[in-house]
Amino acid sequence: MRPSGRAPDEMRAIEIVPNFTRHAEGSVLIKFGDTHVLCTASVEDRVPPWMRGKGEGWVTGEYGMLPRATHTRGSREAARGKQSGRTQEIQRLIGRSLRGVVDLKKLGERQITLDCDVLQADGGTRTASISGAWIALRMAVNGIMAANPGMEDPIIGQVAAISCGVYQGAAVADLDYDEDSNADTDANFVMTPGGGIVEVQGTAEKAPFDEEMLLRLLRLARMGCDEIFAAQLKAVS
Amino acid sequence: MRPSGRAPDEMRAIEIVPNFTRHAEGSVLIKFGDTHVLCTASVEDRVPPWMRGKGEGWVTGEYGMLPRATHTRGSREAARGKQSGRTQEIQRLIGRSLRGVVDLKKLGERQITLDCDVLQADGGTRTASISGAWIALRMAVNGIMAANPGMEDPIIGQVAAISCGVYQGAAVADLDYDEDSNADTDANFVMTPGGGIVEVQGTAEKAPFDEEMLLRLLRLARMGCDEIFAAQLKAVS
Amino acid sequence: MRPSGRAPDEMRAIEIVPNFTRHAEGSVLIKFGDTHVLCTASVEDRVPPWMRGKGEGWVTGEYGMLPRATHTRGSREAARGKQSGRTQEIQRLIGRSLRGVVDLKKLGERQITLDCDVLQADGGTRTASISGAWIALRMAVNGIMAANPGMEDPIIGQVAAISCGVYQGAAVADLDYDEDSNADTDANFVMTPGGGIVEVQGTAEKAPFDEEMLLRLLRLARMGCDEIFAAQLKAVS
Amino acid sequence: MRPSGRAPDEMRAIEIVPNFTRHAEGSVLIKFGDTHVLCTASVEDRVPPWMRGKGEGWVTGEYGMLPRATHTRGSREAARGKQSGRTQEIQRLIGRSLRGVVDLKKLGERQITLDCDVLQADGGTRTASISGAWIALRMAVNGIMAANPGMEDPIIGQVAAISCGVYQGAAVADLDYDEDSNADTDANFVMTPGGGIVEVQGTAEKAPFDEEMLLRLLRLARMGCDEIFAAQLKAVS
Amino acid sequence: MRPSGRAPDEMRAIEIVPNFTRHAEGSVLIKFGDTHVLCTASVEDRVPPWMRGKGEGWVTGEYGMLPRATHTRGSREAARGKQSGRTQEIQRLIGRSLRGVVDLKKLGERQITLDCDVLQADGGTRTASISGAWIALRMAVNGIMAANPGMEDPIIGQVAAISCGVYQGAAVADLDYDEDSNADTDANFVMTPGGGIVEVQGTAEKAPFDEEMLLRLLRLARMGCDEIFAAQLKAVS
Amino acid sequence: MRPSGRAPDEMRAIEIVPNFTRHAEGSVLIKFGDTHVLCTASVEDRVPPWMRGKGEGWVTGEYGMLPRATHTRGSREAARGKQSGRTQEIQRLIGRSLRGVVDLKKLGERQITLDCDVLQADGGTRTASISGAWIALRMAVNGIMAANPGMEDPIIGQVAAISCGVYQGAAVADLDYDEDSNADTDANFVMTPGGGIVEVQGTAEKAPFDEEMLLRLLRLARMGCDEIFAAQLKAVS
Repeated sequence: MRPSGRAPDEMRAIEIVPNFTRHAEGSVLIKFGDTHVLCTASVEDRVPPWMRGKGEGWVTGEYGMLPRATHTRGSREAARGKQSGRTQEIQRLIGRSLRGVVDLKKLGERQITLDCDVLQADGGTRTASISGAWIALRMAVNGIMAANPGMEDPIIGQVAAISCGVYQGAAVADLDYDEDSNADTDANFVMTPGGGIVEVQGTAEKAPFDEEMLLRLLRLARMGCDEIFAAQLKAVS
Repeated sequence: MRPSGRAPDEMRAIEIVPNFTRHAEGSVLIKFGDTHVLCTASVEDRVPPWMRGKGEGWVTGEYGMLPRATHTRGSREAARGKQSGRTQEIQRLIGRSLRGVVDLKKLGERQITLDCDVLQADGGTRTASISGAWIALRMAVNGIMAANPGMEDPIIGQVAAISCGVYQGAAVADLDYDEDSNADTDANFVMTPGGGIVEVQGTAEKAPFDEEMLLRLLRLARMGCDEIFAAQLKAVS
Repeated sequence: MRPSGRAPDEMRAIEIVPNFTRHAEGSVLIKFGDTHVLCTASVEDRVPPWMRGKGEGWVTGEYGMLPRATHTRGSREAARGKQSGRTQEIQRLIGRSLRGVVDLKKLGERQITLDCDVLQADGGTRTASISGAWIALRMAVNGIMAANPGMEDPIIGQVAAISCGVYQGAAVADLDYDEDSNADTDANFVMTPGGGIVEVQGTAEKAPFDEEMLLRLLRLARMGCDEIFAAQLKAVS
Repeated sequence: MRPSGRAPDEMRAIEIVPNFTRHAEGSVLIKFGDTHVLCTASVEDRVPPWMRGKGEGWVTGEYGMLPRATHTRGSREAARGKQSGRTQEIQRLIGRSLRGVVDLKKLGERQITLDCDVLQADGGTRTASISGAWIALRMAVNGIMAANPGMEDPIIGQVAAISCGVYQGAAVADLDYDEDSNADTDANFVMTPGGGIVEVQGTAEKAPFDEEMLLRLLRLARMGCDEIFAAQLKAVS
Repeated sequence: MRPSGRAPDEMRAIEIVPNFTRHAEGSVLIKFGDTHVLCTASVEDRVPPWMRGKGEGWVTGEYGMLPRATHTRGSREAARGKQSGRTQEIQRLIGRSLRGVVDLKKLGERQITLDCDVLQADGGTRTASISGAWIALRMAVNGIMAANPGMEDPIIGQVAAISCGVYQGAAVADLDYDEDSNADTDANFVMTPGGGIVEVQGTAEKAPFDEEMLLRLLRLARMGCDEIFAAQLKAVS
Repeated sequence: MRPSGRAPDEMRAIEIVPNFTRHAEGSVLIKFGDTHVLCTASVEDRVPPWMRGKGEGWVTGEYGMLPRATHTRGSREAARGKQSGRTQEIQRLIGRSLRGVVDLKKLGERQITLDCDVLQADGGTRTASISGAWIALRMAVNGIMAANPGMEDPIIGQVAAISCGVYQGAAVADLDYDEDSNADTDANFVMTPGGGIVEVQGTAEKAPFDEEMLLRLLRLARMGCDEIFAAQLKAVS
């Protein structure tokens, strides 16, 4: 029995508020239940120094959590003077996941930065970030294409992410904080439509898990991502 | 003529969304036109080391700006590894302003941290932060008092803040970004009802200003703060 | 009754030692009673990256306090690895105040850095810094003009600063440490001759203050600055 | 065809030098071909502050790469003043993996730090680190048990790690640098004997991969880990 | 021929201004020609954590250089966020040198911090720092002894320091900046009366030097230190 | 009587393993008894910014100690976020010492970085680093010369280093950790064949030492370095 009363394969309600802020080239507030992440895409006409002159673009991610997004207040990373290992791990994942669906040559010498800032956390902030970042990216690229007639679409396809896990022995989809903090196993999947895996990260929190459980989680993830893909398309249409 | 078409003493629309997030003891999204700040109040039952054992509480402020709250993306302070001088100046101001209306003895050995995070910026983020922080503080203290029957209210009164300035020779209230970046003079006032000044910070951006102009700005500020005081009361009632 | 026995509008003795050190283009040791600040002006023939190619100059300030300038030893900021918020606030104020009286176009592509280092502190270090920095700046600019015949003087006028406050209910000028640490209100004024205000920063340390008190402090400041202006002129003549 | 001429499921030669250094409670130099990692286990009789008084121990990992372990020299992290996101990600993985096979209660209030320092790198440094760290841990725990007769063995079982990937369309085991830098997919597996998965991290470097490929890589990993488990046992016997 | 016209064994004029600042327990401005260092001794009734409870005291040194103490402005270490290797090397030397003449047991559980801040530099700042720090230390310890009748003097004897070197082939005493920056060899000696060596640091800047040259420099140092010892005694008498 | 039973002038066994790692242009593991240092030389075809365009090269050193090279684990400098004063002092010494035997003009616009990483420590790590770095440098320069026929050898001669000291009243050579931590005096000598002194650093840990003792230590150092010079030549032949 899940604390939220959800069925094992039941995801939380997804809500997407496009254009939540006005300055960014792409902006969306994405909610998976009580997890709320503001994702913005910022376009710059220059790439990092080590990429200059190659005629290619770059897509990168940054991640932050407001100090009181969580049940108890965490210290502000800017005040501590460094980003935690967890934050860096997540922002590297966001960048890799989105680059996985972008043809950097077609993007041209532009950098798109995807800022994912968690306003409220209830588990699954990194997967919500990736799922929302794709929408912000799509909006920003639409703007670039509108301003550059004839440009080919550099976005190859959709990407979404979900965390699944083993809670009290059962495989469940879209872990919330209560589940996540007591899960036996926690696995994040970044996927493309049709079941392509961009990234899988599974961790046994208690006992090791086996091949069969990995497959069960993967199938839950695939179903969950299909739901997210639909919500993404609706948001950008 | 102001870029926004407002009258010299006309403030931007104020919108207040109480309980914008759910974990904090006090939480409010405050909007002055296109300036949107999320203010939360977090209560902890311990004070900083240098205050322990005095039977007094502490109120402090922290301030941040999401990287793409602004017209062009700014770098993330957590990634740069330090808070800018501007950020530190603002969060010191927030803390001082709110402490100005709290009786720390009556608060008891508790710390309340007021986090002011700018989701979207259009001028006046520090004054919106102070005005919103008071609401979050009020909510949090209400909660403490509800849990501690017989406790005297440690909040002495309201506090609000506004930026006024000289734009194209005229004194105007509640500067937005277009005005702020071209003002001759920029002055922030932190006030209590009835015209008490908690803090005044005026800077001549171009030519020095005189006593008379300072008084004009002060009077605009007083009128503007009255409007904010009313909005604060409505939000917490 | 002031702890020092001074009259309410009586400033501390001002002593100015020009050319206190020999390498800087401008150098002065300025003393307001027991507050001693070494101010130097350093000229470089290049401006910060973001200003290059505009044909304009830049004036900036830096501030430091020797660890044992104070009653009890403070830790060394270089050893702690960062400048405090207070330090940054002060050096930003020094830079703004001096830029307020310099025509950056006439300065040409040069940067002048005003280093204000407190050798001994007894209240009012930031205002002594500004007042002394103007002298160092004047000396340095005199040197530039002597080396560049025909160059127009980029210094528009004098600037000086003073802290006034409310001590035991009375408005007093030029607070020393004993007064400053017990003041009801503390206000720093940066002014030009004739009563022009470049910057005002007033803080209610206890109860809010009103418009009338602000005006009283402003008038004390104006009288005090007149005394400083005279001392500055004498030092550079 | 693999650059090294190895068969798809053929691992590099494993060499293990126990007691490579003398001060640590456990010490081993582990080599997977040209990847050489020095792993040490250090025992301390105190745990981190947040764990004190629980009667439990802690196992943590740290990771470093000598500046010239790689083909071209990398900058020294200590000189840059921070550990890269990659380093933090790896050391978090090392800690989690080893904690996965330790009963922290049986360990008692002790901390064991596993330092994995790469002397020479040719791909797979994180997996070699985990595989070697287990040996160092085993040695250190043997020493603790020898000094504490009657203590139950806190080590539940073995753990090893391997990177597998898709190189030129084929699934191959134990990627070296040439393969790793051109792989389509790269997946690290941390496993226990009998096929238990402690951690899986798979990344599509080019096109997404599918469920079937994930299973193929998992099976290669399982075979490879069996070889490592045997080498570990031989080293500690 | 020395640039200053001094004889090979001729030191610069030594000037000592005791009580240059008023808050420190010991304070002196020491001048070796154009090298001016402000040395203060600060007494605290507590020692660093790792020394507590041993009944012993601690003496430590800190060193800084004002940004414009030098011919061209150097960046402020507090602003850069770290102390240079040179600064750390010097302050370690100051601490070691002074501890060499203090009986830490007799000092009792007190820490004395010797802050040496260079107001103006012309070579030999570290040796001037040590020579001046002894005076500040002596003053501070006199104060402690006056307040603790019956306490034995923890200062064993005097210590002074001088830099000697090989300039244009000749051994010369008390290098100034012009000599120092062109010396073949530069050697700093920290000595006690009667020729005791506390520390010697000699560096060949060009060709290696031999035993005979080392002895010549040592003898010059001994003569120079005798002059400093006399000046120290005069200052504290 | 020395703890190791060595005669006063007896050095520890020297062992040198050339080409210990394969990527660096020069690489050697050098052992003085239980002190083991991995020294690599890395060649880059560009010099630091402040040296560009002069047609000269640069030689620099970096130093590190693995956390568990020592009897008890030290914290990792990369994790602490800064290099200790000791580390910086040592790496500055390594760089100076090696530059002392290189003609930077003949090197051409190349930088050689000498990384000295202590795998196991038992006293004398800085002197072992210098002695080993020379071998790595020689190897790397041999490679440059082989690739640039006609290039003149930029290495002027050999350099080696040794620590000598006063242990229980007697002058002894090549201090190990037991001696070093109880020495009355500790002196490091960096020398060239024939008795040239590149650097001498002597510190009285207890009572000051005199000229005669300095000479005794110097003579022990000279004999010890002769032994190292022979071992260096054998390693590179």
